[in-house]
Amino acid sequence: MTQSFPLVGIIMGSDSDLGIMRAAADILTQFDISFELTVVSAHRTPQRMAEYAEKAKSRGLQVIIAGAGGAAHLPGMVAAITTLPVIGVPIKSSNSIDGWDSVLSILQMPNGVPVATVALNAAKNAGILAAQIIGSTHMQTAEKLAAYKQQMQEEVGTKIEGLKKQWPNSFDTPTK
Amino acid sequence: MTQSFPLVGIIMGSDSDLGIMRAAADILTQFDISFELTVVSAHRTPQRMAEYAEKAKSRGLQVIIAGAGGAAHLPGMVAAITTLPVIGVPIKSSNSIDGWDSVLSILQMPNGVPVATVALNAAKNAGILAAQIIGSTHMQTAEKLAAYKQQMQEEVGTKIEGLKKQWPNSFDTPTK
Amino acid sequence: MTQSFPLVGIIMGSDSDLGIMRAAADILTQFDISFELTVVSAHRTPQRMAEYAEKAKSRGLQVIIAGAGGAAHLPGMVAAITTLPVIGVPIKSSNSIDGWDSVLSILQMPNGVPVATVALNAAKNAGILAAQIIGSTHMQTAEKLAAYKQQMQEEVGTKIEGLKKQWPNSFDTPTK
Amino acid sequence: MTQSFPLVGIIMGSDSDLGIMRAAADILTQFDISFELTVVSAHRTPQRMAEYAEKAKSRGLQVIIAGAGGAAHLPGMVAAITTLPVIGVPIKSSNSIDGWDSVLSILQMPNGVPVATVALNAAKNAGILAAQIIGSTHMQTAEKLAAYKQQMQEEVGTKIEGLKKQWPNSFDTPTK
Amino acid sequence: MTQSFPLVGIIMGSDSDLGIMRAAADILTQFDISFELTVVSAHRTPQRMAEYAEKAKSRGLQVIIAGAGGAAHLPGMVAAITTLPVIGVPIKSSNSIDGWDSVLSILQMPNGVPVATVALNAAKNAGILAAQIIGSTHMQTAEKLAAYKQQMQEEVGTKIEGLKKQWPNSFDTPTK
Amino acid sequence: MTQSFPLVGIIMGSDSDLGIMRAAADILTQFDISFELTVVSAHRTPQRMAEYAEKAKSRGLQVIIAGAGGAAHLPGMVAAITTLPVIGVPIKSSNSIDGWDSVLSILQMPNGVPVATVALNAAKNAGILAAQIIGSTHMQTAEKLAAYKQQMQEEVGTKIEGLKKQWPNSFDTPTK
Amino acid sequence: MTQSFPLVGIIMGSDSDLGIMRAAADILTQFDISFELTVVSAHRTPQRMAEYAEKAKSRGLQVIIAGAGGAAHLPGMVAAITTLPVIGVPIKSSNSIDGWDSVLSILQMPNGVPVATVALNAAKNAGILAAQIIGSTHMQTAEKLAAYKQQMQEEVGTKIEGLKKQWPNSFDTPTK
Amino acid sequence: MTQSFPLVGIIMGSDSDLGIMRAAADILTQFDISFELTVVSAHRTPQRMAEYAEKAKSRGLQVIIAGAGGAAHLPGMVAAITTLPVIGVPIKSSNSIDGWDSVLSILQMPNGVPVATVALNAAKNAGILAAQIIGSTHMQTAEKLAAYKQQMQEEVGTKIEGLKKQWPNSFDTPTK
Repeated sequence: MTQSFPLVGIIMGSDSDLGIMRAAADILTQFDISFELTVVSAHRTPQRMAEYAEKAKSRGLQVIIAGAGGAAHLPGMVAAITTLPVIGVPIKSSNSIDGWDSVLSILQMPNGVPVATVALNAAKNAGILAAQIIGSTHMQTAEKLAAYKQQMQEEVGTKIEGLKKQWPNSFDTPTK
Repeated sequence: MTQSFPLVGIIMGSDSDLGIMRAAADILTQFDISFELTVVSAHRTPQRMAEYAEKAKSRGLQVIIAGAGGAAHLPGMVAAITTLPVIGVPIKSSNSIDGWDSVLSILQMPNGVPVATVALNAAKNAGILAAQIIGSTHMQTAEKLAAYKQQMQEEVGTKIEGLKKQWPNSFDTPTK
Repeated sequence: MTQSFPLVGIIMGSDSDLGIMRAAADILTQFDISFELTVVSAHRTPQRMAEYAEKAKSRGLQVIIAGAGGAAHLPGMVAAITTLPVIGVPIKSSNSIDGWDSVLSILQMPNGVPVATVALNAAKNAGILAAQIIGSTHMQTAEKLAAYKQQMQEEVGTKIEGLKKQWPNSFDTPTK
Repeated sequence: MTQSFPLVGIIMGSDSDLGIMRAAADILTQFDISFELTVVSAHRTPQRMAEYAEKAKSRGLQVIIAGAGGAAHLPGMVAAITTLPVIGVPIKSSNSIDGWDSVLSILQMPNGVPVATVALNAAKNAGILAAQIIGSTHMQTAEKLAAYKQQMQEEVGTKIEGLKKQWPNSFDTPTK
Repeated sequence: MTQSFPLVGIIMGSDSDLGIMRAAADILTQFDISFELTVVSAHRTPQRMAEYAEKAKSRGLQVIIAGAGGAAHLPGMVAAITTLPVIGVPIKSSNSIDGWDSVLSILQMPNGVPVATVALNAAKNAGILAAQIIGSTHMQTAEKLAAYKQQMQEEVGTKIEGLKKQWPNSFDTPTK
Repeated sequence: MTQSFPLVGIIMGSDSDLGIMRAAADILTQFDISFELTVVSAHRTPQRMAEYAEKAKSRGLQVIIAGAGGAAHLPGMVAAITTLPVIGVPIKSSNSIDGWDSVLSILQMPNGVPVATVALNAAKNAGILAAQIIGSTHMQTAEKLAAYKQQMQEEVGTKIEGLKKQWPNSFDTPTK
Repeated sequence: MTQSFPLVGIIMGSDSDLGIMRAAADILTQFDISFELTVVSAHRTPQRMAEYAEKAKSRGLQVIIAGAGGAAHLPGMVAAITTLPVIGVPIKSSNSIDGWDSVLSILQMPNGVPVATVALNAAKNAGILAAQIIGSTHMQTAEKLAAYKQQMQEEVGTKIEGLKKQWPNSFDTPTK
Repeated sequence: MTQSFPLVGIIMGSDSDLGIMRAAADILTQFDISFELTVVSAHRTPQRMAEYAEKAKSRGLQVIIAGAGGAAHLPGMVAAITTLPVIGVPIKSSNSIDGWDSVLSILQMPNGVPVATVALNAAKNAGILAAQIIGSTHMQTAEKLAAYKQQMQEEVGTKIEGLKKQWPNSFDTPTK
């Protein structure tokens, strides 16, 4: 898969975050949204981070997804520089204090510089949120999001049928 | 086991919660209380959830047990729609922040819409609480609850006897 | 107001909890449900607590609401003795550690002995939950609960009208 | 101010949240982005909430900002129904457990249904994030966001000049 | 080992706590302090608990060590009834919320009814504290405690010697 | 009041803790237990602290009550040196993180060095616990503790009578 | 006071932090250590921040003290760029979640980029720590630090004398 | 490796902390900074601790790194005695409450006695911080620190190249 014109930039503080962050790439692929994925470390490559954030909009990106763990400064620092919406993914890294550190480091941004924070390790949801942002003005993406919602409902329906074989359930309303 | 006339509805946000929630079904079976068990997802099947809650009372249910993890909205949303008592079971799902998210999402309901919250993962206690609610006006269930309490005491008594073989204990009062 | 035949027992660990707990009495009065209200301290009057719990069912109570702060043992200890449903109200007392102590002391009951826990200081919701428990088999109470839900919706409607004078809002669907 | 064609919907669970949420309206006004503002309660007007979410996209909204406190289900439930991006504002209401309840109830959404969560009480940042989402494809809004960033820097510059009168500071690089 | 005249009563809410609580028995054995060990459940055998606490002093006990997990009411309820010093051991049981529940349920006792709380799972320290209480008036026990402190220092000394073989250390002051 | 032969040493890290710690002195006075009260700072007078702890037992003290806030090292360090039982009072000082710092700094002592921790700011309970330790072998103190328990019960009884004038209560069992 | 050659740079994210951060300036003044004080915002002036950090060492600074609240990125980002030791002061700003956000955002830095974190709001201690760093090789500063410790002990001594007038205390060892 | 003249003292409360603390020794070795490493327990060898702290400066140490878990008093007590900068490493030991106990016991030091706290288990960062303190006046160490920063950047560059083989990335700015 080659995507010469990325709409979404997925960046992470370390390649050890890739196990979590690839879910964002996977779901964007599923939604046919072009993206790039790379490592940008706020603490080890601060200058690269600044350049990435400064050039993001002019390079054509519409959304940035940034994942980081511990004292996670990447999403907030990128948001400090760019005017693009930045989605932050708190990652529960080793030596994290149960994930609280990355959640609070990303969520609790000061007035003027928001980061759209998703749940701990929720890179998949970050990708869906990026699709929703794009879909807010792009009809095909919105339709794919609607289909995705429909599909989630149907999957629940299949599970309900499975449960019925073992457990009583007289509530037959179809999933909607 | 077929139960055509359920008094208790056991619902959960995902079939991955079944490992926890089946304990509610097991204890209700033990108390001879009819129930149904199915998946109703607040986030993936919101319309099904609304219909389930709206029809619950007219379908004859007396209590609803709702289990969910993370940002757990199922118990509270069902309680927003029905006037039946809703018992909420916070579930410690993967990527939960130590269970705090589901506990607080279920417990901290606003004025006007209570959820009877039990301990983290405590589906068994949810079943017992449902039995207590039914037993508050139904004599046979109340008697079974009293017998259950008696049995718990006797099980402690057996354990005490076991401990005596290894550890000194001069307190011979029987368990009551 | 005299109520010779209480269905709900409201107890609290200290009369300093009355400022919070009277909301349970007020809402039960509104629902025309008879109740009694007194102080029963697990730590200062353990024998009174045991007697209260032991006699509660035979005295005709159907639900017990127990409020306590700090290391709050009253709801759980009453639930250990009676088979009635016990609703626990965690109270944020002075020197509480932000209310966490009473929440966890009431919520995290072991298997076999549930307490129906409501939100911090949520005595009003405890009263509504008691009404829901009674209303699960008592038609008039269920109707009052339905009317109460209707009234809450209408109050929102009034507020929406108030907001419209100052803020734009083109969403005119009536509150339901 | 009349705005017949709102791009952003600002909703909140209660009019008591208005003190916090009006900051979102103020900043959107500053960015010349049309919006509507109303009360939609997940727990007291669940049907209104469902209709609001279902119609939001067809009514022309591009972003929804939803603020709520305690067990805050409004943002997540709206996100369950619409495919629009939903920005959640956790509000530290009275009887909140230090805000943790609303933060976790909004942030920790399950896979498939993201909510773009901002900091506790950060309605202003929710408004800026909505502008960034709109600005990701709308040039004038992007330019206003860039100007806003510039203005924030200049305000810091003014403060630095103020501090110099009292405190030594030999670092004369202008704010950028 | 038979001890007909126990000075310390070690009780726990469940025999599943024995893995933790036996450390109290082991250290008391080491200090030649007689003890008894049994299960007393606040929630499953409330009457046994009351009798245990009421008779403890007249049976000759001088200290009670009570271990419990979750919403741990055993130490506090025993302390409510007896005038003996009660040492509470919070136990991190399964489904505990990281141990916070048992810590706060035992520690945060109201005015008038203290529990001498030790660290999470610290049954060994509970035994040492019981020995210190006895040793506050009993000379031989105090001497054993002093010897135990001395021994802990010497064990550190041995470890220091071991470290020296691998790591530089020019600080030769003996452990004291 | 002069007490030439103190049994209990009350120490605190700063005289700003006196507002909390004087409750320990007051209750010991009420129990006719001699005590001394002074400031001993682990961090500002470490040598004084070491000498205080080393000489405590030979000076005739039987119990030490140590109160401190923040990173509270005083109780644990004194316990490291003396073999007397040390009661720790966590104090919620200014800039404390809600009291968690002092609670955990005092409670979570390593194996070998227990501190008998009481609730946040619970200096009164520290005094009662000291009395219980003394009363475990001293009959008059034990009798005073029993009378104190009786008095607490009677105070509850008085409050119950007061509540009856306003609230219904048909449970007439006397407080015990 | 003019100091043309600062050894310590005191920076803060906002001039609203000055109420806390001036304590660092005051104690450095007391230790005769030259400093500069200014506002450098990671989120509002990221370029200024980068330049400050890049030039700090060549401008002659030996230590940087950086204070910030909420999602506090200033200390960590400065530490990412400079090789100077950076002392981080977590500030409990409005809308902070009890200070946890700034504490964890500053403390939990990844491997390779430490920040020397002090207690919440502890700007005075940040100043003392800067003095200790300078004093590790600068004799006069070390002597002033030793004198400061001596003075703290003597202040405790004065307080002890004050307490003696009201409270018994037979422990006459002088403060050391 | 023999180092007769240590500049940094690495101490820990127990040899069970060595698994964590050796990372400090390793990184100091990499920076060619002489150090010593030994066990000094605040709770088991309080006198050794006092002597270590008292003699540290005269023995030529410039920085002390102290690691401890649970109620971690070693860093703070050493800082109470010496005027050298003390770096504290909170260690997540067994029975720790998720590391919060050691973090708060080390971080929340009172005014006058700072500890330079690093992240949970972050002994490597403690070593780097010690190097930064030494490097603040020692040119060769500062140069090594600069080279170390450069090396971290280059390692990120290598990882970026690796990612490019699998994931699209059109951002070719070299890491700096």
